[in-house]
Amino acid sequence: MNLHGKNFLGAELSGSGSDVYHAWSPATGERLEPGFHEAVEREIDRALELAEEAFADYRARPPEERAAFLDRIADEISSLGEPLSARVAAETGYPEARVAGEKARTVHQLRMFADLVREGSWVEARIDSAMPERKPLAKPDLRRMLIPLGPIAVFGASNFPLAFSVAGCDTAAALAAGNPAVVKAHPSHPGTSEIIAEAIREAVEKCAMPRGLFSMLHGRKNDVGLHLVRHPLTRAVAFTGSLKGGRALFDAAAARPEPIPVYAEMGSVNPLFLLPAALRERAGEIAEGLKQSLTLGAGQFCTNPGLVVAMTGDELVLFIAKLRTLVCEHPPATMLSEPIRQSYEKGCGRFQETAGVRVAARSASAPDPARTEAAAVVFETDARTFLERPELSEEVFGPSTLVVRCSSPEDIDKVARSLRGQLTASIHCGAGDLDRFRSLVPILEMRAGRLIFNGFPTGVEVCPSMHHGGPYPATTDSRSTSVGTAAILRFARPICYQGFPQDALPTELRHENERGIWRLVDGRLTQGEG
Amino acid sequence: MNLHGKNFLGAELSGSGSDVYHAWSPATGERLEPGFHEAVEREIDRALELAEEAFADYRARPPEERAAFLDRIADEISSLGEPLSARVAAETGYPEARVAGEKARTVHQLRMFADLVREGSWVEARIDSAMPERKPLAKPDLRRMLIPLGPIAVFGASNFPLAFSVAGCDTAAALAAGNPAVVKAHPSHPGTSEIIAEAIREAVEKCAMPRGLFSMLHGRKNDVGLHLVRHPLTRAVAFTGSLKGGRALFDAAAARPEPIPVYAEMGSVNPLFLLPAALRERAGEIAEGLKQSLTLGAGQFCTNPGLVVAMTGDELVLFIAKLRTLVCEHPPATMLSEPIRQSYEKGCGRFQETAGVRVAARSASAPDPARTEAAAVVFETDARTFLERPELSEEVFGPSTLVVRCSSPEDIDKVARSLRGQLTASIHCGAGDLDRFRSLVPILEMRAGRLIFNGFPTGVEVCPSMHHGGPYPATTDSRSTSVGTAAILRFARPICYQGFPQDALPTELRHENERGIWRLVDGRLTQGEG
Repeated sequence: MNLHGKNFLGAELSGSGSDVYHAWSPATGERLEPGFHEAVEREIDRALELAEEAFADYRARPPEERAAFLDRIADEISSLGEPLSARVAAETGYPEARVAGEKARTVHQLRMFADLVREGSWVEARIDSAMPERKPLAKPDLRRMLIPLGPIAVFGASNFPLAFSVAGCDTAAALAAGNPAVVKAHPSHPGTSEIIAEAIREAVEKCAMPRGLFSMLHGRKNDVGLHLVRHPLTRAVAFTGSLKGGRALFDAAAARPEPIPVYAEMGSVNPLFLLPAALRERAGEIAEGLKQSLTLGAGQFCTNPGLVVAMTGDELVLFIAKLRTLVCEHPPATMLSEPIRQSYEKGCGRFQETAGVRVAARSASAPDPARTEAAAVVFETDARTFLERPELSEEVFGPSTLVVRCSSPEDIDKVARSLRGQLTASIHCGAGDLDRFRSLVPILEMRAGRLIFNGFPTGVEVCPSMHHGGPYPATTDSRSTSVGTAAILRFARPICYQGFPQDALPTELRHENERGIWRLVDGRLTQGEG
Repeated sequence: MNLHGKNFLGAELSGSGSDVYHAWSPATGERLEPGFHEAVEREIDRALELAEEAFADYRARPPEERAAFLDRIADEISSLGEPLSARVAAETGYPEARVAGEKARTVHQLRMFADLVREGSWVEARIDSAMPERKPLAKPDLRRMLIPLGPIAVFGASNFPLAFSVAGCDTAAALAAGNPAVVKAHPSHPGTSEIIAEAIREAVEKCAMPRGLFSMLHGRKNDVGLHLVRHPLTRAVAFTGSLKGGRALFDAAAARPEPIPVYAEMGSVNPLFLLPAALRERAGEIAEGLKQSLTLGAGQFCTNPGLVVAMTGDELVLFIAKLRTLVCEHPPATMLSEPIRQSYEKGCGRFQETAGVRVAARSASAPDPARTEAAAVVFETDARTFLERPELSEEVFGPSTLVVRCSSPEDIDKVARSLRGQLTASIHCGAGDLDRFRSLVPILEMRAGRLIFNGFPTGVEVCPSMHHGGPYPATTDSRSTSVGTAAILRFARPICYQGFPQDALPTELRHENERGIWRLVDGRLTQGEG
């Protein structure tokens, strides 16, 4: 496949800047061709001006057209074969099955949002009928629904080159709600990003959508992202990545003359609480599940289980022994990039040097730095050390976890209470555990977006009831999710029409409800008239 | 009525600080007794610690108990008679009918949230059933609903001493969602605030609620509010007031180690577009309606119409003549406080000194500064001057408005496009206007929270479909409303339970749906099982 390395400003290709960078294959250390042009300010400005122009046209299109457009993007991506898979694999080091799975998920997400838009009830229509005779004041006719915001800046994630990048969940949700998207491609997979951007450009053409609806910018430096977030035409920001990166964007957006929402998903340690009866009943099964969850994708998931909390005792000793065997057998795996590998090594080094923390297990074979490999590692410490060292609760992105030994249920609660916001928290229970550790669930409810019972946090189902979010620092906005249909709510806001004539109202709010969507009419949910 | 002038730290009264201030009667210039104790830091800390403690208990109470508590607050306030009305009138200068109306609205809001909580569907429950046989991966059981955030800081508004103050919409919504509230009383009506706080304290006792559920702090200086917003236990902030005040709280919250949402409603100029046929058909009626909306409550509403946009021509000349007569006849009215009056005079002075702006009408009688009075004023300018002077689109809080003469539909669009975020925008149309000015509604949709057809912005209906919000600087969060049932969403976030046993789930998410709430079960809305 011939890649051009340029930025997409709507349908135009542009490589005005002289700063060119390359992707690298983490598995071989090879530099991958071609070079990609770092976007310059006037290209970013142009992308946003085109987006703003396209917005007025796009948001007025009937839902069926928006849905067909999302389906078309899904079709285009589906039809991309070997050249896409090969480039993803080269840029990420991910095995074939992972690439195929992520592609399927990306296509599924686009179709899910197409269906959501086609069905239409997502606009949360509410109608209150007029009461002209009411005393002392007449009640006006009031009709409310959600409308799109305008150009959305989406930042591609390093670890999901497809599902959370150029045509990932945020882009799909933004487009579904009626917004244009300006995507900042992640610099570790610019080739993958270009292939997907071409697919979207193709869909824009085939569906006769306004060309400024989608743009994609390359950038390795922070300036590109910051300029994008500070641009007055940008109306919201979606980001998946590090706490440092997400917070920088949040701060830039909050300091704007007109602040805008930033949905940054910044990961977490996703604590697992292994309660005593669970360990007594099925230590082996839990050790196997943990090892799999921990090492999945070389531990490069936001939901990677980086913390394990359990009561001291024979069950725990046995559990750690089983986990040790499994982790030792687990071969080192290629990480996404050399900076990520180095950061992982640094994080592990920090744990290792902390007094009171010891290595309980590590992949037996040595990782090959030339293949950007990392070993799986299990650390172990006690509750006291953990509570005294807040840095031990910080995420280390990669296949490591820390087991914290507690000597009482009160210790378990203390550790739980010490945690900051998490995407997930899991508890493994056996007979009687839930009763004995009754206070744990309420503590975790206040600290996590998703609570998992007898399961592992990796594997985030894409569906209406998924919530992939959580209190800060897991995200910058605990009210929103980056997975599932509710993600569309990130990119919409309510508007209310008072006393409008029927034919001046959006279809969704007219009396006859021709699309049959669910609406709250005079306080009652109905698919009927109103 | 004997007032004590103390802060409410849960059920405890506290006046640790030596800094004491008084309310003033704007209508007489009299100092009102007693003095009120500015809260000191340890009192603020104590209020939040009590709130955090109460939170765990309160959020676990069944919805029926929460609803009964809200109803009880409504009952307590209902039963407050003359002493409340007299104090409100003394502190605000509002006439009797306004005080009675606002009291009724406050009671109505509390009961509305009680009903919402009792009905229960507001938690937006979503359920996706497990598919253990699904290949390649089993699908887990997932159940999502909204849960409360924790202690909410609510800032009382100067212009709504009851409906947007101590037991106003934000407090009611926060409590309804399951959160404790710590209210910062507005310093212009501390006596009213104390009477309402006593009513809530009474309701807390009678309903055997945890005592820390409600606290109220006095403070005239910014420090009290900032300390409250920066406190690590505060989980969200609601504010109604000036752009300067709201932005300061927003900035403080965004700069926290853990940023929290700030819902600041900061007002706007609420443009009215008077289209030519409308003026031709009913200039007198519109002039009468505008004069009433403009002068209602001495113009001290967030929705006060501060900008009127119309085409030049005979219709406009006639309209302004009618408006002039009405405004000249309108007597000056007492404003809420001397600082507000001074700020109004300053704002009017700024307009008056602007080249190209002239006074078209003013109350004929001179305002009496000893009664904190302000005259109603209508300014007039042309589109060019307006577009060249962005300061002319800034809100002047009080009974003034600016008529902007446009010479073409393009000018009208230009003026509309120049506007920043608004709570409302109104258009008055006659035959053919909507067609001729087709581009106007889409422009306004992007700039306002509520669009009004042939009506005036004051008078905000309290109901499910009301949206009282809008893009910045009307508010700091265009996704949320400060009026109506949807205000409850400010103080809640989703959580998802994966694979939980039925008896460990909240009632709202259990299979049998014993409360019969609306839930999205496997993608279908139903009141049935799931």
